[in-house]
Amino acid sequence: MPGMSVPAASRVFSALSLAAALWLLPSIPSGARAADPSPEPMTISEQGSFFVGGRDVQSDTLSTLPAYAPSGTINVDQVYVRYQIPVAPTRSPLVLIHGCCLTGKTWETTPDGRMGWDEFFVRRGFPTYVIDQAWRGRSAASPAQIDAVKIGRADPNSLPAVFSAGREPAWAIFRFGPEYPKVFPGMQFPLEAQGEFWKQMVPDWSAALPVPNPTVPALSELAKRLKGAVLISHSQSGIYPFQTAALDRAGIRAVVAIEPAACPDPAKDDLAPFKDLPILVLFGDYVDASPRWAPRLKQCRGFVAAANAVGGRAELILLPEIGIHGNSHMLMQDKNSLDIADWLAGWIEKRVPGRS
Amino acid sequence: MPGMSVPAASRVFSALSLAAALWLLPSIPSGARAADPSPEPMTISEQGSFFVGGRDVQSDTLSTLPAYAPSGTINVDQVYVRYQIPVAPTRSPLVLIHGCCLTGKTWETTPDGRMGWDEFFVRRGFPTYVIDQAWRGRSAASPAQIDAVKIGRADPNSLPAVFSAGREPAWAIFRFGPEYPKVFPGMQFPLEAQGEFWKQMVPDWSAALPVPNPTVPALSELAKRLKGAVLISHSQSGIYPFQTAALDRAGIRAVVAIEPAACPDPAKDDLAPFKDLPILVLFGDYVDASPRWAPRLKQCRGFVAAANAVGGRAELILLPEIGIHGNSHMLMQDKNSLDIADWLAGWIEKRVPGRS
Repeated sequence: MPGMSVPAASRVFSALSLAAALWLLPSIPSGARAADPSPEPMTISEQGSFFVGGRDVQSDTLSTLPAYAPSGTINVDQVYVRYQIPVAPTRSPLVLIHGCCLTGKTWETTPDGRMGWDEFFVRRGFPTYVIDQAWRGRSAASPAQIDAVKIGRADPNSLPAVFSAGREPAWAIFRFGPEYPKVFPGMQFPLEAQGEFWKQMVPDWSAALPVPNPTVPALSELAKRLKGAVLISHSQSGIYPFQTAALDRAGIRAVVAIEPAACPDPAKDDLAPFKDLPILVLFGDYVDASPRWAPRLKQCRGFVAAANAVGGRAELILLPEIGIHGNSHMLMQDKNSLDIADWLAGWIEKRVPGRS
Repeated sequence: MPGMSVPAASRVFSALSLAAALWLLPSIPSGARAADPSPEPMTISEQGSFFVGGRDVQSDTLSTLPAYAPSGTINVDQVYVRYQIPVAPTRSPLVLIHGCCLTGKTWETTPDGRMGWDEFFVRRGFPTYVIDQAWRGRSAASPAQIDAVKIGRADPNSLPAVFSAGREPAWAIFRFGPEYPKVFPGMQFPLEAQGEFWKQMVPDWSAALPVPNPTVPALSELAKRLKGAVLISHSQSGIYPFQTAALDRAGIRAVVAIEPAACPDPAKDDLAPFKDLPILVLFGDYVDASPRWAPRLKQCRGFVAAANAVGGRAELILLPEIGIHGNSHMLMQDKNSLDIADWLAGWIEKRVPGRS
């Protein structure tokens, strides 16, 4: 299969990159604050936050409390974005998009207190943008339907299907082990700090939202505003960058899908939007041992092959193939998270020309 | 009234500080990116995020979706904290606590794209910690009661009283003008960017939570962890730092209440926890023109006088008294927001000894 030559080449490159990373490790900011409490200070040229997307909604069930009026206009579907830009950035901007039940916190300080990918990539020279998905975290949801039911104006069944992930069922989904509380041998998630991880989880409204998720047009707006960005998704959000590219390729320089819940379906999705677009689908370890993830890996393999058959530049990498072992679904928080970030930075630097 | 001598002294100090601030303005980072796109780069020694507080809750109504199990354990009441520490910090850590219907975004980039207080205070030498209140933004809420009602296991009236603030009724509360869409003369909120401000508003669960709000014990944990901090509240959260001090004075070096919705009530609250504690209650402009805020100002005046009568170090300042005019309720986002931050930094430096 012609398409497979790209991953093969990538594996060679990756092995070199990993060797280089290991060689350089003492001089790379480790971020392991517990072990090394004083990484070098970081100088940034600009930071801040803003919103993209959004639409106005008028409602007369915004409140059931006397102190706050029930009628008025609110904004929903907007996406909160926080960013940092290094001094003299030489790399393409990155957009980090979290997964199910989580927020942009995913990419920040790890549960055991080490440097997050958000900071690592800034130190590596990438302007880095972290979002909260629409209706999640600092991106507004609407209480209108909840309040309409509370006052008897709507049927209970019309309540939004908001859910949170309990840690026991989430355990296997995050591939900490085959079932709660068993642990895969050599698994790298810092389970000693799992309490801090479970605190990251928030209610997820995505099942109550239209398809594509409102995050998708907001990502398109962001990519254009940045005049080019690499969209890096995780898990639930895996399909979003592909949907964004299908909406409009403008501003999308590459897609990195980390452990995507789904890739585009060659049987029904148009693959033309992915022509000449650098795409990386990246999975951790123990995937074949997971009834949830093994089929998703297989589905993404099919997409990568189909995309490359029509002029794509897609690659699918399992971390064990490049010598990185023990990674859970939350690989950006695993103990070797910065080794993976270093490898990924190398992939991006190779596939996406810098700004300089 | 003996208690009033402190504010009077402060007004003299304030006028001097303001004059100094105006004199120094060209060399102070203005943050006005629209006008000045290149403030000096900023070097920070450490940044990151973590949670304080929280408790485990078991539920069997976490989900109504087949793909996600309904039963499991989640964490609620925890508080998300994001921080930055300047190189060689010489000042006391600050904790910035947002108000009703908003998140920590309150203190970040202003709606019209200028530097937020979160960055200003780091540049000024303060380790700065920004939180999301419990059950808000990146601090988890629970969907359990919503899902219990959705599947018919609980009565609709048991739904949490979650509310959002519509912009039309919020207009007068934020004192942009006497009523929507009228504007107070000289009012300094950047209304040309109001669309970006309305996007900051999220659902507010506070009325569904116990009193004191779970944010209060989390703030106490944070103040102790920081080994001393100045708690800076806004609006709805105005009472929280006082409640935190009443819970435990440990770690609380000063309280700044910006436009508090309530101050402690001398008729029923013990004032002993506030003895020798530097306290600043700060209001903007047009307060007497607001039926919502005029009584709150009066109530806080009563508290300040009563606290000082029993050994307090409380001050109440209206910005017009120190020559700063036109401020709305969102004074940390008004066009002169950094003038106010500069004055406030001076107040803190004077009242709270630095770390050096």
